[in-house]
Amino acid sequence: LLLLSSLVCCSATAYADEPNLSNSFLPHYEPDQGDALGSSQDTRLHVFTVDYAYVQIPYEVTLWILLASLAKIGFHLYHRLPRLMPESCILIVIGALVGAIIFASDHKSPPVMNSSIYFLYLLPPIILEEGYFMPTRPFFENFVSILWWSLLGSLLNSFGIGLSLYGICQIEAFGLTDLDLLQNLLFGSMISAVDPVAALVVFEEASVNEQLYMMIFGESLLNDGITVVLYNIFIAFTQMHRYEEIESIDVFAGFARFFVVGLGGVLFGIIFGFVSAFMTRFTHNVSAIEPLLVFMFSYLAYLSAETLYISGILAMTSCAVTMKKYVEENVSQNSYTTIKYFMKMLSSVSETLIFVFMGVSTVGKNHEWNWAFICSTLLFCLIWRTLSVFALFYISNKFRTYPFTFKDQLIISYSGLRGASSFSLAFLLPVNLFPRKKLFITATLVVIYFTVFIQGITIGPLVKYLDVKKTNKKESINEEIHVRLMDHLKAGIEDICGHWSHYQLRDKY
Amino acid sequence: LLLLSSLVCCSATAYADEPNLSNSFLPHYEPDQGDALGSSQDTRLHVFTVDYAYVQIPYEVTLWILLASLAKIGFHLYHRLPRLMPESCILIVIGALVGAIIFASDHKSPPVMNSSIYFLYLLPPIILEEGYFMPTRPFFENFVSILWWSLLGSLLNSFGIGLSLYGICQIEAFGLTDLDLLQNLLFGSMISAVDPVAALVVFEEASVNEQLYMMIFGESLLNDGITVVLYNIFIAFTQMHRYEEIESIDVFAGFARFFVVGLGGVLFGIIFGFVSAFMTRFTHNVSAIEPLLVFMFSYLAYLSAETLYISGILAMTSCAVTMKKYVEENVSQNSYTTIKYFMKMLSSVSETLIFVFMGVSTVGKNHEWNWAFICSTLLFCLIWRTLSVFALFYISNKFRTYPFTFKDQLIISYSGLRGASSFSLAFLLPVNLFPRKKLFITATLVVIYFTVFIQGITIGPLVKYLDVKKTNKKESINEEIHVRLMDHLKAGIEDICGHWSHYQLRDKY
Repeated sequence: LLLLSSLVCCSATAYADEPNLSNSFLPHYEPDQGDALGSSQDTRLHVFTVDYAYVQIPYEVTLWILLASLAKIGFHLYHRLPRLMPESCILIVIGALVGAIIFASDHKSPPVMNSSIYFLYLLPPIILEEGYFMPTRPFFENFVSILWWSLLGSLLNSFGIGLSLYGICQIEAFGLTDLDLLQNLLFGSMISAVDPVAALVVFEEASVNEQLYMMIFGESLLNDGITVVLYNIFIAFTQMHRYEEIESIDVFAGFARFFVVGLGGVLFGIIFGFVSAFMTRFTHNVSAIEPLLVFMFSYLAYLSAETLYISGILAMTSCAVTMKKYVEENVSQNSYTTIKYFMKMLSSVSETLIFVFMGVSTVGKNHEWNWAFICSTLLFCLIWRTLSVFALFYISNKFRTYPFTFKDQLIISYSGLRGASSFSLAFLLPVNLFPRKKLFITATLVVIYFTVFIQGITIGPLVKYLDVKKTNKKESINEEIHVRLMDHLKAGIEDICGHWSHYQLRDKY
Repeated sequence: LLLLSSLVCCSATAYADEPNLSNSFLPHYEPDQGDALGSSQDTRLHVFTVDYAYVQIPYEVTLWILLASLAKIGFHLYHRLPRLMPESCILIVIGALVGAIIFASDHKSPPVMNSSIYFLYLLPPIILEEGYFMPTRPFFENFVSILWWSLLGSLLNSFGIGLSLYGICQIEAFGLTDLDLLQNLLFGSMISAVDPVAALVVFEEASVNEQLYMMIFGESLLNDGITVVLYNIFIAFTQMHRYEEIESIDVFAGFARFFVVGLGGVLFGIIFGFVSAFMTRFTHNVSAIEPLLVFMFSYLAYLSAETLYISGILAMTSCAVTMKKYVEENVSQNSYTTIKYFMKMLSSVSETLIFVFMGVSTVGKNHEWNWAFICSTLLFCLIWRTLSVFALFYISNKFRTYPFTFKDQLIISYSGLRGASSFSLAFLLPVNLFPRKKLFITATLVVIYFTVFIQGITIGPLVKYLDVKKTNKKESINEEIHVRLMDHLKAGIEDICGHWSHYQLRDKY
């Protein structure tokens, strides 16, 4: 009860901030002139004056971050809540409430979730933290499976959903005949992006075994690159207006684009990673700025990659993986702690903000409802996800020493949570090319809400019910040393034989 | 030699970034369209594309921060440099070089040092770090002396310099007769602001004794509030155009303003400090966001105070002092380390950036040279500083148990380093009211360069030459306990007597 009341108290504090916030979104905000010595027309000297416009941007950013922190604290204060549902659900609900308050007082939803805020500021910290704390060994152990599943999986999903929806659009009764094939394919590529944030939050809370976790992690890592490339290709195709203009060379260029985006991203990341690792060698006299180097170089890798339209996510992840070992050796103990905890802090705040902002953006006038389109989108998302998982794992299992069980596959297909990246892409659509943009936004939101709420809440119990193998127990040091020895031995033997397999890749990191 | 070559290598890396930077300040920057499949006019699909405008802001911020970090690393690599001159000198020189490169390629100096960047983003981290790590005991021990000296000192300096310069302006041969009394007083208030950053950097490197350090620290803390208030009052007076319009009520309002700004700032800080200290009680489940609360609440205190035109510096300092003890008890060990080191990191980066930016802003077309005005400004700054120190300390020494020696006073008067705050205020002047704004900027820059370079470089040797008492040696635990006991005893006795003195204040913190 005490905890509950504290929760209410927290919320009250949060809402005390609200009037400020909602005021600040009024287009023409008039500062209250404290008229201690006369009206605001004359030029007498004032004892009190207010100048809100001056501090507006940092002030609002600070308030949003505080609101998000308070929501998080409130969530954890009430002990039974975290066991009932994942944090993301509560955060979205709080966001929607705040959005409703702002919308009610202003009839205009705040522009908090435009795509550049998401891709430039909110996503990078999360990617950095994931890349930096990624268990490299299991990742490279499962490298081929991850590549196979995430590449073909997202292609299958994109085209599957897009084509099926195009079929639905042909039925005249639904009033969707103005949506052509390209628009449907674009929507398919948008909606098939499994979110790095939503899925992993749920999986961490459910603490599934490493192999399963790595598949989802790898998928969300590579998925983004593929989705964004597909999205850009389809936008470019749509700009050409007529199908006849699309030549085979364009399709080839599209394929080339995939490789450039993927490999370019990795290359960028590795270069930046080595440069920053090298820089940290010279910082022993100025240890105060060591964490800064790590953060700034990773961010620079991300931004540079984004500038060239290659995968920033891959660049940042490979940068973090590359620099990690060297940085750990080079920096002072305190800097290391700071890097670790500050990274965790940043990513946890970004995560919270993303969910809150998604809730806030839900409220507004951007919606168009169409039962047929939205229901079939939801249905096809689920069907194609399940189909692609079982088809692709059936093939990849034939080459694996430890195949994924039926239960594992079920969990993977059930964990296709959509999140903020689909939503941002939907917001980014140019209205002149996509007159039904509002319909796309609504459909995306419905899919996100369905997957985050229904699937997100039930996946924990499902994991428990299916009795999926949970996190592997800690090995003894003796065992670990022997495993490590065998790894090096295998890699060495292969080196001598001139044979090049995935043992090599694993051993380099 | 190896170190020197690494330094060159660092600089080379820094300058490799330069073309990017200087490009980005071109008003209409055309992204290089990688024309892999056609010219940029047609709509063919491209394998490579560049979109720099999208990432411009965060990219440039990141590059500036990296440049500053590299400059700092380079400075510390060459071992003999730190002993020769303070870091600030080198940073300003590097900044001026970078500014010259940008100016040469663009004929336009980058807008890096406008007042809102300085006051909203660069100054707060430094103030927070100083407030948080301030030795509270010696501060409150010397509280009355600090208040006396900083309040009257800056008033004396402002009016002294302003009036003397007005005298100079009356001599027709110098061509300065268009500068009236108010403009001179305004300039006096601007130029008399001792910089919190420049002075303390030098003092920390010279490691003088605590009492001396506290005087300078306290001065720079309170100074800002006074200077900004004076500045605003004079701007308001100037807007009234004619002297006859200034009534005595306005002068009283000016005095009232002082109290509101000072006490309001402290009150704000204490309130925010207690709120954040209270919030950290509930974070034991979400320790990842503990550092965030500390940073965000202090920043919020600063911004709120700035919105109301009361002293943000005082608000932030008192917020940090208030929350410190509670936060230390409430947060986890790792969060505590993160808070400490991240604070140090932020403030060290801000400091570096301020000096680099000051160097960058030096190069440009904003200058007007007038020998008489600039030389007399410099002269009066030195004279009034020395006069006010000796006059005020002569009085305050009569009430002190441990008086400041002649040497101490000499060091204090010599340490009146001007810095970025005067410079930002000069940039902020409205041109329509101050047609000779460029002259003011040039004079401010000359004073800053003189104090930072000449006084900054010689103050270390001077401290050594005068044999000023350096940092007090560590006391034994036994001694410390007894001192603490005596403090409480004295405060208790005074409490019983109903007598209220500075022992009380010291004991509360």
